Amino acid sequence: MADDQSTDTMLPEEGDYELDREVMRPVLAALAAGDAAALTAAFEPLHAADIADLLEQVDDETRHALVRLYGREIDGEILSELKDSIREDVIAALEPQVLADAVRELETDDVVDLIEDLDEAQQDTILDALEASDRVAVEQSLSYPEYSAGRLMQRELVVAPEHWDVGQAIDHLRAQEDLPEQFYHMILVDPRMRPTGYVTLGRLLSAPRATRLADLAEESFRTIPVMQDEGEVAYAFNQYHLISAPVVDADDRLVGVITIDDAMAILDEEHEEDILRLAGVGEGSLSDGVFATTLRRVPWLAVNLVTAGLSALVISQFEETIAALVALAVLMPIVASMGGNAGTQSMTVTVRAIATKDLTSANLWRVIRREVLVGLHNGIVLALPLGLLVALIFGAPMLGAVIGAALVINLLVAAAGGMLVPVALEKLGVDPALASGVFVTTITDVVGFYAFLGLAGAMLL
Amino acid sequence: MADDQSTDTMLPEEGDYELDREVMRPVLAALAAGDAAALTAAFEPLHAADIADLLEQVDDETRHALVRLYGREIDGEILSELKDSIREDVIAALEPQVLADAVRELETDDVVDLIEDLDEAQQDTILDALEASDRVAVEQSLSYPEYSAGRLMQRELVVAPEHWDVGQAIDHLRAQEDLPEQFYHMILVDPRMRPTGYVTLGRLLSAPRATRLADLAEESFRTIPVMQDEGEVAYAFNQYHLISAPVVDADDRLVGVITIDDAMAILDEEHEEDILRLAGVGEGSLSDGVFATTLRRVPWLAVNLVTAGLSALVISQFEETIAALVALAVLMPIVASMGGNAGTQSMTVTVRAIATKDLTSANLWRVIRREVLVGLHNGIVLALPLGLLVALIFGAPMLGAVIGAALVINLLVAAAGGMLVPVALEKLGVDPALASGVFVTTITDVVGFYAFLGLAGAMLL
Repeated sequence: MADDQSTDTMLPEEGDYELDREVMRPVLAALAAGDAAALTAAFEPLHAADIADLLEQVDDETRHALVRLYGREIDGEILSELKDSIREDVIAALEPQVLADAVRELETDDVVDLIEDLDEAQQDTILDALEASDRVAVEQSLSYPEYSAGRLMQRELVVAPEHWDVGQAIDHLRAQEDLPEQFYHMILVDPRMRPTGYVTLGRLLSAPRATRLADLAEESFRTIPVMQDEGEVAYAFNQYHLISAPVVDADDRLVGVITIDDAMAILDEEHEEDILRLAGVGEGSLSDGVFATTLRRVPWLAVNLVTAGLSALVISQFEETIAALVALAVLMPIVASMGGNAGTQSMTVTVRAIATKDLTSANLWRVIRREVLVGLHNGIVLALPLGLLVALIFGAPMLGAVIGAALVINLLVAAAGGMLVPVALEKLGVDPALASGVFVTTITDVVGFYAFLGLAGAMLL
Repeated sequence: MADDQSTDTMLPEEGDYELDREVMRPVLAALAAGDAAALTAAFEPLHAADIADLLEQVDDETRHALVRLYGREIDGEILSELKDSIREDVIAALEPQVLADAVRELETDDVVDLIEDLDEAQQDTILDALEASDRVAVEQSLSYPEYSAGRLMQRELVVAPEHWDVGQAIDHLRAQEDLPEQFYHMILVDPRMRPTGYVTLGRLLSAPRATRLADLAEESFRTIPVMQDEGEVAYAFNQYHLISAPVVDADDRLVGVITIDDAMAILDEEHEEDILRLAGVGEGSLSDGVFATTLRRVPWLAVNLVTAGLSALVISQFEETIAALVALAVLMPIVASMGGNAGTQSMTVTVRAIATKDLTSANLWRVIRREVLVGLHNGIVLALPLGLLVALIFGAPMLGAVIGAALVINLLVAAAGGMLVPVALEKLGVDPALASGVFVTTITDVVGFYAFLGLAGAMLL
C-alpha cells in the first residue's frame, strides 16, 4: 500500500502490502472525531481484505467502535475476510438488517465459509436473511462433512451439453442473468449431468461460432469427489495446475465447482497449521486473548514437562557418576541438545515429505538409509572438534573420547528417530506434524544422557 | 490415482493423489523388459507432474534408464515439473533434438523457470533451440533479478485498447493465431500501453457485442511492479484473490502478466522454505545425496554446538554448587527444555505473523504484552505441579520452590525472547525464519541454567 516507510516503527522492512501507520492514521482520526463520512472515505481505497486485517489488528474496544461507526458499510466481503474469532465478534455487533444485506451479496461458497464456524443462533440469523434458493444451496453444502470438497465448492455452475457448438454456448451465456461472479471454464456434461470435459473461456472466445465445444475441450480433465478432504483438493490444484475443477457425487454427477483461489487459501491454511503444529502451538491468531492463548499452549508444555521428567529419571540413575566427576553435568546438555536439533531437522524433512507426497513406498527405504548415513556423517564431523576441545579444556583425553562417541550415537539415533517417528505416526493415522516433536526430542534426550553418562561411568570411573 | 491400497507399504494412509506401487509397477516392468512401447503406455494415463514425481522418487540409475528408454516422449511439461537437481540430471541425459522440441512447446515463463537454475552451457543449448522471438522474450525475463515479478511473468499478453467494445474484442481474439494457452482476463490499455483495467472473460462472453469494454472492467484492479519480490506477489494474489495481474515497468507500462497458478506455486515454495528454515534445514530435496545433505545440515548443528558450549560455560560456573547437591544436575535440564519449548512456540507464532503481515506497528506492543503475560501464566500454571512434585520426591521444599521460581523466570524470558528476536532480526534485514531458533534457544538455555543453579546456590547452600 503506502510506499513511504514510517520511521518510528519496530518493523521497518514493511513490504508493499503491509498495513502501516500511514493507512491506520486517517481511520483512527475519523474514529476519534466520530466522523462516519471521514471513516468511509478512509476505508474507500482499501480492499475488503485489508479492512478485515485492520479490524483484526486493532484492540477489541477500537474494533467495536469502528464497527458501530462504519455500520451499514460493512459488507459480506469484509465479513468473509475476517478470522473466525474476530468475525463472530463483528457479526454479534452488527444490526440484523446490515448483516442480512451483507450476506445476500455473497456466492454460496462464501456464505458457507462465513457461517460454518458460527454458533447456531448466528447461523440461523444469516440463513434467514438469504433468498430461499440460496438458503437451500447453503444448507446442502453444510450437510457435507467439514473440510470436504462439498463444503468448499460453489454451486453456481456454468455448464453446456457436450454436443453444443460455440455459438450456442455464447448465446446461452448472454441470455443467463445470474452468472457466477468469477468463472473460467464451461463444463461439458452428458445428458445425465456427468461432466465429460471442460472448455476454457479463452478457447471459447477465440473459436469460430460453428466449432463444436467437444473439439475445444482441454486435454487434461479432472473431477473432484465431493467427499474428498480439502487438503487433497488443494494438493490436486497445486500438483496439476488446475484453475477450476468440477465436483462430482458418488454417481459421478456434477454437483459443484471449486476454483483455484479457494484451493490456494486452503493450501495456505494447511501450511500454517503444519508450521504451528510442528512448534507445538495449536491454531489460533494474534488477536486471541491471553487466556485463550495460555490454554492452547500449556498442554504442549505439560507434555514436555513429563518427557523432561523422563530425562531427569535417566540422569538420576547416574547421580554417583556425576558426584564423582562434576564435569559430566557441565557437558551433558551438549549431547542432548545436539541430538534434539539433528532429530528436529530429520523429522521436519520427513513430515514435509509426507505432506507433499514425496515420500512413498517407492523411496522410503532409500530415504531412511540416507538419513542414517547423514546422521553418521554429521556425528563424525562434529564429534572430532568437540572431543578434541573437551580433551584439551578438561585435560582428559578419555572424557573427549566419551563425549565424541556419545555424540555420534545420539546423532545416529536422532536421524533414525526423526524419520521413523513421523512415518509410524502417519501409519497410525496421527498427524505427524502434531505429535512427532515430542517423541523425537524425548528419544534424543534420553539416548543423549544415557549414552554420555553411561559411557562415562563405564570408561572413566 | 489408484484407490486400492498396497498392503506391504509402511505408509498405508496414501491419499488420492499419491504415487503408489500400483502406478510404479507397470513402469518398472516395462523398464525391466526394455519395452519402450509398454513404458509409453504406462506413462500415458499420468499427468506430467506425476511422471516428474516418479522420476524424482526412483534412484539415479533407474531414472537414467527410464530417460533413455522414454527418450523422445519426454516433453517440456515434464521437464518443468522436475525439481532443479533432478532436472539438470535429466536434461544432461537428453538428446539435443529432444530437448529442443520439448522446450519449444512451452510458454516463455515456463522456459525461464526451466533454465534459470541451469548452468550456462545448458542454458545456451535451450536458448538456441527457441525461436528468435521467444528467445528474446526469455532473455529479457532473465535480465530481471532472480525472485522478481519479472522472472515470474509471462510475456504472452491479451490486451485491448480501452475504447473497444465487446464485438471488437471477440473478433480480435478470433483473428489471433498465437494466444496464450491459459488466460482469464483481457487487459485494457491506454495508447501508451499503460493498463487501466481488466475484463474477465466471463463478462466478455456474457455481454452483448456493443457493450464498451470499459463498462465491464472489474472494480478492483491491481498491477504488479516488475521488480517486486515474488513472495510479495504471492501474498498479493492470496490476499486480494487475484486470478491474474498485469505486470508494469517503472513507467507503468504493461510488460507481462502473472497468473494465479504461478503465484500458488511460489506461495507453496515460500512456506516450504520457512518450515525447513525454522528447523535449521536448508533447501534441498529428498532426492539429494548423503554428501549434499550432510553439507546442508552440518552448519546449523555446528552453530548449535557453539551455543551449547555457552550453556556448558554457564553450568561450569556452578560446579561447586552441583558437587554439593547432585540433584541439581538431575533437574536442571527440565528448566532449560521447558524454556526452549515455550520460546519455540512464541517464536514460531511471531515468525509466521511477520510473514503473513499480521504483526505490524499497529499491534506490536499489544502482542508483546500478550506474549509476556502468556509466558507468566504458563510459568505459574506449570511451576506449581513441578515445584510440588520436586519437593515431595526429593523431600526438599526449598528445592521445589527454587525450580518453580526458575521455571517462571525462564518461561517469561522465553516468551519475550521468542517475540523480540524475530522482530529484531526482521528489523536488521535477516530472515527471522532462518536465524531466530538459534538465538531463542541459546537465551532460554543460558537463562534456564543460570536461574535454576543461581537460585539454588543462593537459597539452598
